[in-house]
Amino acid sequence: MNRILLFSFLFLSTLPLSAQHHHTHDRVIRFPDVPGYHVLSCDFHQHTVFSDGSVWPDIRVQEALRDSVDAISLTEHLEYQPHQADIPHPDRNRAYQLAQEEAKGSNLIVVNGSEITRDMPPGHTNAIFLTDANKLLHDDAMESFREAKRQGAFVFWNHPNWTAQRPDGVATLTDMHRKMLAEGLLQGIEVINDVNFSDEAFQIALDQNLTLMGTSDIHGLIDWNYLVHEGGHRPVTLVLAKERSAESIREALFAHRTVVYMNNTLAGRPEHLLPLLSACIRVESAEYEGNTSVLKVALRNLGDSDLLLQNQSGYTFHHDAGIVELHGNSQTVILVKTRERLKSVELPFNVLNAFTAPGKATSVRLTVEVH
Amino acid sequence: MNRILLFSFLFLSTLPLSAQHHHTHDRVIRFPDVPGYHVLSCDFHQHTVFSDGSVWPDIRVQEALRDSVDAISLTEHLEYQPHQADIPHPDRNRAYQLAQEEAKGSNLIVVNGSEITRDMPPGHTNAIFLTDANKLLHDDAMESFREAKRQGAFVFWNHPNWTAQRPDGVATLTDMHRKMLAEGLLQGIEVINDVNFSDEAFQIALDQNLTLMGTSDIHGLIDWNYLVHEGGHRPVTLVLAKERSAESIREALFAHRTVVYMNNTLAGRPEHLLPLLSACIRVESAEYEGNTSVLKVALRNLGDSDLLLQNQSGYTFHHDAGIVELHGNSQTVILVKTRERLKSVELPFNVLNAFTAPGKATSVRLTVEVH
Amino acid sequence: MNRILLFSFLFLSTLPLSAQHHHTHDRVIRFPDVPGYHVLSCDFHQHTVFSDGSVWPDIRVQEALRDSVDAISLTEHLEYQPHQADIPHPDRNRAYQLAQEEAKGSNLIVVNGSEITRDMPPGHTNAIFLTDANKLLHDDAMESFREAKRQGAFVFWNHPNWTAQRPDGVATLTDMHRKMLAEGLLQGIEVINDVNFSDEAFQIALDQNLTLMGTSDIHGLIDWNYLVHEGGHRPVTLVLAKERSAESIREALFAHRTVVYMNNTLAGRPEHLLPLLSACIRVESAEYEGNTSVLKVALRNLGDSDLLLQNQSGYTFHHDAGIVELHGNSQTVILVKTRERLKSVELPFNVLNAFTAPGKATSVRLTVEVH
Amino acid sequence: MNRILLFSFLFLSTLPLSAQHHHTHDRVIRFPDVPGYHVLSCDFHQHTVFSDGSVWPDIRVQEALRDSVDAISLTEHLEYQPHQADIPHPDRNRAYQLAQEEAKGSNLIVVNGSEITRDMPPGHTNAIFLTDANKLLHDDAMESFREAKRQGAFVFWNHPNWTAQRPDGVATLTDMHRKMLAEGLLQGIEVINDVNFSDEAFQIALDQNLTLMGTSDIHGLIDWNYLVHEGGHRPVTLVLAKERSAESIREALFAHRTVVYMNNTLAGRPEHLLPLLSACIRVESAEYEGNTSVLKVALRNLGDSDLLLQNQSGYTFHHDAGIVELHGNSQTVILVKTRERLKSVELPFNVLNAFTAPGKATSVRLTVEVH
Repeated sequence: MNRILLFSFLFLSTLPLSAQHHHTHDRVIRFPDVPGYHVLSCDFHQHTVFSDGSVWPDIRVQEALRDSVDAISLTEHLEYQPHQADIPHPDRNRAYQLAQEEAKGSNLIVVNGSEITRDMPPGHTNAIFLTDANKLLHDDAMESFREAKRQGAFVFWNHPNWTAQRPDGVATLTDMHRKMLAEGLLQGIEVINDVNFSDEAFQIALDQNLTLMGTSDIHGLIDWNYLVHEGGHRPVTLVLAKERSAESIREALFAHRTVVYMNNTLAGRPEHLLPLLSACIRVESAEYEGNTSVLKVALRNLGDSDLLLQNQSGYTFHHDAGIVELHGNSQTVILVKTRERLKSVELPFNVLNAFTAPGKATSVRLTVEVH
Repeated sequence: MNRILLFSFLFLSTLPLSAQHHHTHDRVIRFPDVPGYHVLSCDFHQHTVFSDGSVWPDIRVQEALRDSVDAISLTEHLEYQPHQADIPHPDRNRAYQLAQEEAKGSNLIVVNGSEITRDMPPGHTNAIFLTDANKLLHDDAMESFREAKRQGAFVFWNHPNWTAQRPDGVATLTDMHRKMLAEGLLQGIEVINDVNFSDEAFQIALDQNLTLMGTSDIHGLIDWNYLVHEGGHRPVTLVLAKERSAESIREALFAHRTVVYMNNTLAGRPEHLLPLLSACIRVESAEYEGNTSVLKVALRNLGDSDLLLQNQSGYTFHHDAGIVELHGNSQTVILVKTRERLKSVELPFNVLNAFTAPGKATSVRLTVEVH
Repeated sequence: MNRILLFSFLFLSTLPLSAQHHHTHDRVIRFPDVPGYHVLSCDFHQHTVFSDGSVWPDIRVQEALRDSVDAISLTEHLEYQPHQADIPHPDRNRAYQLAQEEAKGSNLIVVNGSEITRDMPPGHTNAIFLTDANKLLHDDAMESFREAKRQGAFVFWNHPNWTAQRPDGVATLTDMHRKMLAEGLLQGIEVINDVNFSDEAFQIALDQNLTLMGTSDIHGLIDWNYLVHEGGHRPVTLVLAKERSAESIREALFAHRTVVYMNNTLAGRPEHLLPLLSACIRVESAEYEGNTSVLKVALRNLGDSDLLLQNQSGYTFHHDAGIVELHGNSQTVILVKTRERLKSVELPFNVLNAFTAPGKATSVRLTVEVH
Repeated sequence: MNRILLFSFLFLSTLPLSAQHHHTHDRVIRFPDVPGYHVLSCDFHQHTVFSDGSVWPDIRVQEALRDSVDAISLTEHLEYQPHQADIPHPDRNRAYQLAQEEAKGSNLIVVNGSEITRDMPPGHTNAIFLTDANKLLHDDAMESFREAKRQGAFVFWNHPNWTAQRPDGVATLTDMHRKMLAEGLLQGIEVINDVNFSDEAFQIALDQNLTLMGTSDIHGLIDWNYLVHEGGHRPVTLVLAKERSAESIREALFAHRTVVYMNNTLAGRPEHLLPLLSACIRVESAEYEGNTSVLKVALRNLGDSDLLLQNQSGYTFHHDAGIVELHGNSQTVILVKTRERLKSVELPFNVLNAFTAPGKATSVRLTVEVH
């Protein structure tokens, strides 16, 4: 053996593994702001002992503070009062008042709301930003909705896919809902309720120009329901609000500026989801490895949701077979084989877990400037 | 309020969350057998102090036992001997002999192998199932390959995408490789080496009828390189062998019966990958929820790799927006909205992280019998 | 070098480390039974929305089931009713009734109780095993206690060290308490309340022949207060009961058969604590290492509390410098250097975190039969 | 009920739990400096493939860097060379040279050393700070020791309790050792070797004025032997050195300035152990709770070892029954009931896991100035 062999064996350890990141889960739900808007996480469907929940309003406030939820509403069932033998409260604003009291001194926004609780149709409906929930008590649900409208409330259809009212789980618009829409009595629809995602509700929202809503509908404890200490979290509505205020959230809801989020799934209209994804994915650095034409791109996911990317560029990657998972609040490195050394590289991806319509994954395009 | 409202609020807590599974990682790499074959995890590219590695062969055996790897080969560089000032060993079978000794009493299969270590072309090449590695020492690499063939060895091209030899990271067949193929001197190619996956090597394998190989090429410690205690693992070649024996593995390699596996990525020919996926995914139960037409299907992933499913059935799901992640060695429940109660349901999925060709995700079809 | 050196280097890896155990925490509070008695974990001081707590009674039942607590009492403040604007309940048995309802079908024992809530003296006092809590409502606290006695209730002094009533935190018997004792109106005293341990209460219990009590006094959530997901747990009273029944627990409380437990601290009278420690520590095996006189003793701690042992035998240990920690629900190996091979070895230990009087650690003596 | 009851129920949640700390383990072994000295963690007994270890010297350097160990020595057996068929190295300085090379650019101090490996007496002995290990090769061990002395080496007796040479595990001085002492050929003794602690070696050190040594004697991998990823660590000798240099460590060893540390056990002479404990325990704040006489003292343990404190003050504590565990690198709060509000409080403790003589726990006295 008289040949001189010179290798650089170092390369093995210099390359990080995109999918073997160490990332710690905390319970905080954080997303970056988008141009022109704050991104506020909101949970506008919750219950306490003032209807059929199992906690006093103070626990709901404390849960929200632990989760960094920006705004909540305790939407007690107006008509379903299983605790009335013990809590014969005539005042339907009471849970709101107590939560407001508890939230004082924090920056949590508490919004007055109620659940109008009826058989299907129209099923259950939330009205939030009420001034007086008591006035919604009517035998005729339509009168309740009209009163909500008079108060300037934002009204959304709850769990239209609920199997207790729709045994097939398929959200379906009824004549009564059409009538509500015609009268301007309904502005939103839950695409996410608790652990459930409804593709059909998503389609109805798009067809009827309704705001996408995602809520926990929590009755027990957030920690137990969502296995928070194993990395789970409640679903939320991400609201793109001009300011961090109740009024601004209300404006945004009426303007349909929401993205719903649960369990590593995002859904929203393209005009809201795309800016959010763009804000989440930041190119932190991009440089060629040594004298190769392999471009090392460090991506940071600034959002809470993992993002599941599918490579749509013409390039292949040095580490990954086309699927790259960007864990929430983490950095991921990808190595792009550009074949020649370029100044700027376009990287289009499908985001497989972010939907702009039922079953329709979003696309993002990263422009990478090489340094 | 004189209406009687009867709800079943219980449903909320009876539905498990498909994506919030608690699953513990251990370091063991396990896959179920497929019809007719054992599925053996093999790592046939490793180094010790007998070339440029940092451990004695006993550590490699102990690492394999901790990982439940079924077969290994310590493929020292024949020509690259940076430790020769201290280990002037003429016997190129020595690492094999010491590993054999250490493995006695365990069921680990140790295979004699060497790395023929040359400039490109042909770059580095492993020959395994050697009877005497010393005889491969030749100035002319072709003579080494011919000797390997005489010994009945299985020969594969290592890291054809290695940037030290291919600065663009793009595996490309050379004339010399074509000559080797023509002479029957090359049977396999590394699609996975360490943390790197090569789409181009994958395509070469398919075009040239080569066996897909995945190896660690470990020089240091498996635990450190693959962050084993954070859930990482080394890459392996899954070999579909008729029996659990060295000879049977050799037969399978010559017959191309492999699937390569790293970091939640699987790649293989359809005839091997599909049976493996079918063996991994077991329908454990299927029943309709109460009197609804929502079918609860419990799926168990018996393999080590998470499987990333994309719903391709006409049905929508009650929990998931079309993407379902089946964590390795875990049960996942999906809820299928079949709209009417069926006796049998077909569920086709794309498996986004299992590839039968570069960038081409596999499809599986689950047939669910309802009980 | 012509000497032949024969060593057994194997010894290094054959010896387990007593203090580097891997042990998983679950939230279940378990202790083994002792001869003649079940050991039941009980939490007889808790609050719900029916006085100043933040949860409905169902949550208290669910917390107890998650913790494997055997018996609970929801001891609402009789006189302190901050939620009365919303819950104007006259029935002081209500929390009990609701908890009973929720506990149906489980094996959780729910006991009716109330907190008689007064300024000091006598401060706060719990009466449990009541038949009708309403009858305790009297302006004169002594009349409340007399009614409790008429109902056969077990009565204990709550947090006598509470700084809101005793700014020095020092539990001190008052004339009123002496009067209660003289009339047979007080049977127990909290040595542990929430995160607080009172040495002075412990001494009062011993001096006055009172039952030792340990309770959570929970108002919010057990999970949050005790960092359950980081391995914490609520304090409990371990009751040595003849049977697993409410009546049997009541008999045991009147007979003073309790040990209190919080946060790796145990306190009890010797006649209860010693049998409990004996039941917790089981010698699982004892054999000499090879042909040495080093005795390998495997100890299992069957209880939930870590036990902190201080070697009091004449022997020294091969691994430990005299302090051995037996983690709860785990096996620990100690190596005793007995200097000659014995058939039977006595191993006395101080148990530094188990107290039979203020500041007085318990002693246990293990008799180890060698096999 | 017409009495006004005013309570401060807030106190429950304002008190942290001393023993329910959340503290993350990393593998780094850190202790604070003491007045006049750096505290350096050193492991001066290790093996590589150059005697009977299983790794190349580079791994030992990398392990040390991961553990933040300040200084190491690779003390190959001079006479026991089981790998000599493969590594026929005549140069006994070779492992040192390779480790030096690997450590370049880091601040790890590598010291040349060898293990003089004989039957008992004298058993095994390490000589470190050698200038040429080869010169220690003599048939007569006494000549080896004399050569070590000529080279200015520091010499210590290894595992005098090793059951392969002392079947009773009891370290016992032999005539040969007395002769070595008389000739000035022996300066230290291992009190800790791997997982073993020898009370008898500790006593010999005190009687004979020898330096206390603690070493890993590692042959395989530190990570596996000490379950590093479950929070374990190798034993080390903490050296109180005037500067961070090899020469300064050597001076400190000859001056006996060491504390040995394994697995939450510390042992040292009072003049070294007490300053170390004082440096470890810092009073971070001390203030009375509200208007009570309960003093809240925040203690930070700046060292790596948990410290097991037993209250020896006349005061009782509000949370703890006399035993307080200060976790390494964590803050712990204790509440001292001083009965009146004092300006300054003395808090003497036994440190149950820190020994100044066999079975003799240390005492520390904290002086707490109240703010």
